Amino acid sequence: MHRLSFAPRFRFPLLALLVGAVSPLTSQVTATPRAAPTAAPTELQAGPGGWVKEFGTMWTFEAPPLEYWKGRYGFEPSTAWLDHVRLSSVRIPGCSASFVSDRGLVMTNHHCARACISAVSPADTSYQEAGFVALRESDERRCEGSYADQLIATEDVTGKVRAAMTAAETAKQVEQRDKAIGDIQSVCQTSPEIVCQVVTFYQGGKYSLYRYRRYTDVRLVMAPEEGISFFGGDPDNFTYPRYDLDLTLLRVYDNGQPMQTEHYLRWNSEGAKEGDLTFVVGNPGSTGRLLTMAQMEYLRDVQYPAALANYAAQIALYKELAEESVANRRKYENTIFGLENSQKATRGYQTGLLDPAIMARKAAFEKDFRSRIMAKPELAAKYGTAWDNIARAQRELGSFAVQMQFHGFGGGSSLLNLAALLVRIPEQEALPDSLRLAAYRGAGMARMRAQVLQDLTIDVALERQLLATQLGLASRALPAGDPFLAAALGGRSPEVAAEVLVNGSTLGSVAARRALLDGGAAAVRASTDPMVILARQVNPLAMRHAERAQGLTTTISANVALVGQAIYAAYGESLPPDATFTLRISDGVVRGFPYNGTVAPYRTTLYGLFGRSAEFDNTPPFRLPARWQAARNTLDLATPINFVLTSDIIGGNSGSPVINRNGEVVGLIFDGNIEMLPNRFIYTDEVSRSVAVHTKGIVEALRKVYSAGRLADEVERAAVKR
Amino acid sequence: MHRLSFAPRFRFPLLALLVGAVSPLTSQVTATPRAAPTAAPTELQAGPGGWVKEFGTMWTFEAPPLEYWKGRYGFEPSTAWLDHVRLSSVRIPGCSASFVSDRGLVMTNHHCARACISAVSPADTSYQEAGFVALRESDERRCEGSYADQLIATEDVTGKVRAAMTAAETAKQVEQRDKAIGDIQSVCQTSPEIVCQVVTFYQGGKYSLYRYRRYTDVRLVMAPEEGISFFGGDPDNFTYPRYDLDLTLLRVYDNGQPMQTEHYLRWNSEGAKEGDLTFVVGNPGSTGRLLTMAQMEYLRDVQYPAALANYAAQIALYKELAEESVANRRKYENTIFGLENSQKATRGYQTGLLDPAIMARKAAFEKDFRSRIMAKPELAAKYGTAWDNIARAQRELGSFAVQMQFHGFGGGSSLLNLAALLVRIPEQEALPDSLRLAAYRGAGMARMRAQVLQDLTIDVALERQLLATQLGLASRALPAGDPFLAAALGGRSPEVAAEVLVNGSTLGSVAARRALLDGGAAAVRASTDPMVILARQVNPLAMRHAERAQGLTTTISANVALVGQAIYAAYGESLPPDATFTLRISDGVVRGFPYNGTVAPYRTTLYGLFGRSAEFDNTPPFRLPARWQAARNTLDLATPINFVLTSDIIGGNSGSPVINRNGEVVGLIFDGNIEMLPNRFIYTDEVSRSVAVHTKGIVEALRKVYSAGRLADEVERAAVKR
Repeated sequence: MHRLSFAPRFRFPLLALLVGAVSPLTSQVTATPRAAPTAAPTELQAGPGGWVKEFGTMWTFEAPPLEYWKGRYGFEPSTAWLDHVRLSSVRIPGCSASFVSDRGLVMTNHHCARACISAVSPADTSYQEAGFVALRESDERRCEGSYADQLIATEDVTGKVRAAMTAAETAKQVEQRDKAIGDIQSVCQTSPEIVCQVVTFYQGGKYSLYRYRRYTDVRLVMAPEEGISFFGGDPDNFTYPRYDLDLTLLRVYDNGQPMQTEHYLRWNSEGAKEGDLTFVVGNPGSTGRLLTMAQMEYLRDVQYPAALANYAAQIALYKELAEESVANRRKYENTIFGLENSQKATRGYQTGLLDPAIMARKAAFEKDFRSRIMAKPELAAKYGTAWDNIARAQRELGSFAVQMQFHGFGGGSSLLNLAALLVRIPEQEALPDSLRLAAYRGAGMARMRAQVLQDLTIDVALERQLLATQLGLASRALPAGDPFLAAALGGRSPEVAAEVLVNGSTLGSVAARRALLDGGAAAVRASTDPMVILARQVNPLAMRHAERAQGLTTTISANVALVGQAIYAAYGESLPPDATFTLRISDGVVRGFPYNGTVAPYRTTLYGLFGRSAEFDNTPPFRLPARWQAARNTLDLATPINFVLTSDIIGGNSGSPVINRNGEVVGLIFDGNIEMLPNRFIYTDEVSRSVAVHTKGIVEALRKVYSAGRLADEVERAAVKR
Repeated sequence: MHRLSFAPRFRFPLLALLVGAVSPLTSQVTATPRAAPTAAPTELQAGPGGWVKEFGTMWTFEAPPLEYWKGRYGFEPSTAWLDHVRLSSVRIPGCSASFVSDRGLVMTNHHCARACISAVSPADTSYQEAGFVALRESDERRCEGSYADQLIATEDVTGKVRAAMTAAETAKQVEQRDKAIGDIQSVCQTSPEIVCQVVTFYQGGKYSLYRYRRYTDVRLVMAPEEGISFFGGDPDNFTYPRYDLDLTLLRVYDNGQPMQTEHYLRWNSEGAKEGDLTFVVGNPGSTGRLLTMAQMEYLRDVQYPAALANYAAQIALYKELAEESVANRRKYENTIFGLENSQKATRGYQTGLLDPAIMARKAAFEKDFRSRIMAKPELAAKYGTAWDNIARAQRELGSFAVQMQFHGFGGGSSLLNLAALLVRIPEQEALPDSLRLAAYRGAGMARMRAQVLQDLTIDVALERQLLATQLGLASRALPAGDPFLAAALGGRSPEVAAEVLVNGSTLGSVAARRALLDGGAAAVRASTDPMVILARQVNPLAMRHAERAQGLTTTISANVALVGQAIYAAYGESLPPDATFTLRISDGVVRGFPYNGTVAPYRTTLYGLFGRSAEFDNTPPFRLPARWQAARNTLDLATPINFVLTSDIIGGNSGSPVINRNGEVVGLIFDGNIEMLPNRFIYTDEVSRSVAVHTKGIVEALRKVYSAGRLADEVERAAVKR
């Protein structure tokens, strides 16, 4: 639902692309491997933080920046403090979470527990909408398939992985590396409750083995209604001031009983005050802080403008359709919100890239970085050309990006995409696997065939408009005389061409598609379907672009890996690595920020919640659940609900606890403000803020809205016991 | 207090400068003349509104845009409607107001009635802080010196004024014009209750005689505490969402009794809903929508950057001082807020000038305008060269603006300013009056002498830092080798130079200044005071700049007047004239706007008020008055307090009523959002909004916070009686 969950409802449409561009050689974070070695605790290293401002504060527990913390905050945590905090944290699918009682109570975000909440909902009720409270422990409901991973040990395995990479060619090296990683993981995994994963830091500058204890009996304890967990909905998403109880309580069971644990975060109901030092402990998914200037310029000048033009055109189209009838409005409402959210996110990233001050800081860092590399001959020989190689490839990619976008038919009309698949499948099938485009290799081919035969309902009117929009965008973006334009339009307007193409095509029928697919190359060649004819004409162009892009992307990936290794060589662990969806601890300060010509307070209150609801006439997404309306007069409306801090977070941090210097939990991360979006590339803290639920608001809601005094008592008792 | 009052606590430091640059030939709006002619109602003219978007909607009652209103809203007011609305409105010093009951009750802003509120406060209480409520009519307190002017008639006197302007040279023409205006006003003013004023529209394109009925028995009825009238203080100033009860109720008395009137606005307690058509009726002070591209570019490239650099340096300085001690923080708090507000306003204007879309619209208008002028030979001959003349003069002004700024010593060190005055006064006195700089002519000389002798307390430490800041700015802005830098710094750092200059100067003593002033040129020549020495060295440069600038400003003024006349010649009254602090009616729609990545509601509520207070721990400027805290539980917190609309307003509109199409009052204008600031140059309505107090919030507060049911009854009875 929100941008901080790493999955499953992910709000970063461009992330996959970006990650792909940055590190296709990086092993995936969701790997689930086997067996185990000795997992000795890694030595703690001090980080001077020279470029900490740019690289942010997503520190690993392997290399906590003890000197930096001491110098900046006078904060000197013991190893016991760090171990306790690490062991009190858990990773759940796509999100972060933490233990908040000695009976295995786990706190995370509502939007991180959607699968669990839906799974335990009875047939006639959606707990997602209605909320759920287990009044007694016996009412807690097991979520099948859920699990929580606790990081019990880490080990530097860089030497082992490197030792295995003896080959001369890159492809072979990659194979050796993957085998070594697989072997290390196999040896590590000693029992079903142990999960091991080799994490690639600095694009291969460092490899670490992470060993987790996996808990698989996870039960739903309490979830509020979506109306309050996602109050303000898509419009308020990524923003602050905010008023969301984005909370779910789970409980880990062990042998059928609530898990007994010493490692849980003590509760602090007073929460944090402005200026307090705090730490966010969680699993940020992916950042692009190692991107070179050339990569950032490509995003700024090529990729984001194209994406934004596309969002704008599609939003305009769906809004027009939504205006036509009440039914249409309902039908397209979610599509529009989704597109607007993607647009909001992309605009946010682009804002950073368009900010001369941010780009100047990045350029200054790159200059320092490259001069450190060039100063040592052995580093210069190994890494010195990487930046220019990336820049050259990005420039070349940029030179035909517009053609590639439109000649490839991506997005827009479903019929045209189907036609393109029908033309490509027999062509690719005729090639040996290794010569095919990546998407058609191995099991990919079967997926492509399945896509052609999927049971789609084609809305003809929508299809016509989508195609007209796509053709309109193309005719504005492509130079006159472009062969795709000639073939698709033939001198007609986008609207007329779209009408002729859609009305004349039979590809809306699965039978027609199956006939073409079964008939293979000959059938495709003989087809008189106008969509197929167009796809046939344009396909050779699209193939040429795709092959050219594939070569360039490989070059970029290889050189990006070199840059990653170079940063480790130049700065060691004084700079935190890019996010890897593994456990990090990020320092920050609770602080309001300049906003809207005035100041945003460091925290919001229940007054503000009821206010924002009333100001929109209590209509969705600002409608308060009935329980909240009923509880109105019992609530202390001055109770804080959300607050902001300067910690460094990103998707995957959803559900992370916010703790104070005593290790007590004072909040629950669930989002960032809109000014945080550019932090994807460079960390800034002038106006960018993490947004968290306040512990005081949680207790007030548990006691007065949800009759869940037993849970409030459980966490608050935990605080007292300490 | 707020930006919408035209005076006396005016928040636009740059306005005077701007007005000066635009129209020094325009007669001042605050003139208070004599006698009267026949004041026939002017013929109503329809406005096509071709460029209405750029020129906004500050329509005069002489030329209401009936066709435009009909076409855009289907709204066709009768002459009676327009007359009633006009006669229900009054102008008070610096602000606008309206009658809201048949017993002469007048509604305006709290910040418009400051003088009155202070004047009636007893020695031991500040009603400004504590608020005032007359529980009975007999408790209402007369504000000595207050008055309210009701516009009873207007008459086009362009022919009369023009007929008098027979001379060939401009200076003589101006004299003839001023005499004609004086005569018209004298004839008009038939009794002490009548005030007549000739208003110059379109920089002299049109002259109208405005005849007012002046009411001088004005009494204070009710004023809330400043803590609620200016809730949020300087930080929230110019912003929305907002929560201010910026209200004062006055009453006009006639012969010692509440004035009986049929012309008052009926009260509508429900207020306006989103999408409603509304009108703001009031007296906007000054706009710069006739500025040429060259003038706007000068502001953007020369004047505003210099002002912003200056604000930034001063804010940094005062913030540093404020950090030093609690006493300093208190001492400089208001200075910092004031500077930050000026910075906010200037940044707001600059935002518009830096917006390529806004500048493109302005350029498109200027192109259309100039081509209309060039299409008619007689217009081309008269006005055709005005734009280029302005551009040339602005360019030349820009070429030495930095030198003029620093060589003139303006701002910064008080001692240096005093030294400059001491050097200049004898020089200027030696010249015949007509050859002096404008500021030293006539009574100006006495003012300058008084400035030298004023009783100042010079804070030496502050003075050193102000001078160091000034010298630092100068050394960054001026080219190396600049004679001022050479004289002031002589190779020293700004800090060292400032210390030597300040510590060595005796000008902090009035006696020392008096001795120099009395001693005249000889004493100044002989002085060894380092400040005087510096001023002596640099003064010849400053004088050269001042004379050169004076010539250029005269050229600009003359040509700006031509542009004003040309617009009237090209478009007639289809475009509303720039604001003149005379009565206008501006159409608009009640509407929220995109803000902060999400949406701002069209109205705020008392929930939001209590929320914003709680979110800042109820500390100033977010502290709620005790009466409000006590009334908390009796209030319906869902009651609207402020709302926004697209009407076109600016300083002077403070206190204007917002009415609906039935002429009922639904709100009270008191500010604009920060996005409105660029409207000074071009009207936009995408995100810029006027901010008003909601009538429902006023009634709720009167009844439940102020025990002023009699006043709530009075306005609501008025509504029923209609």
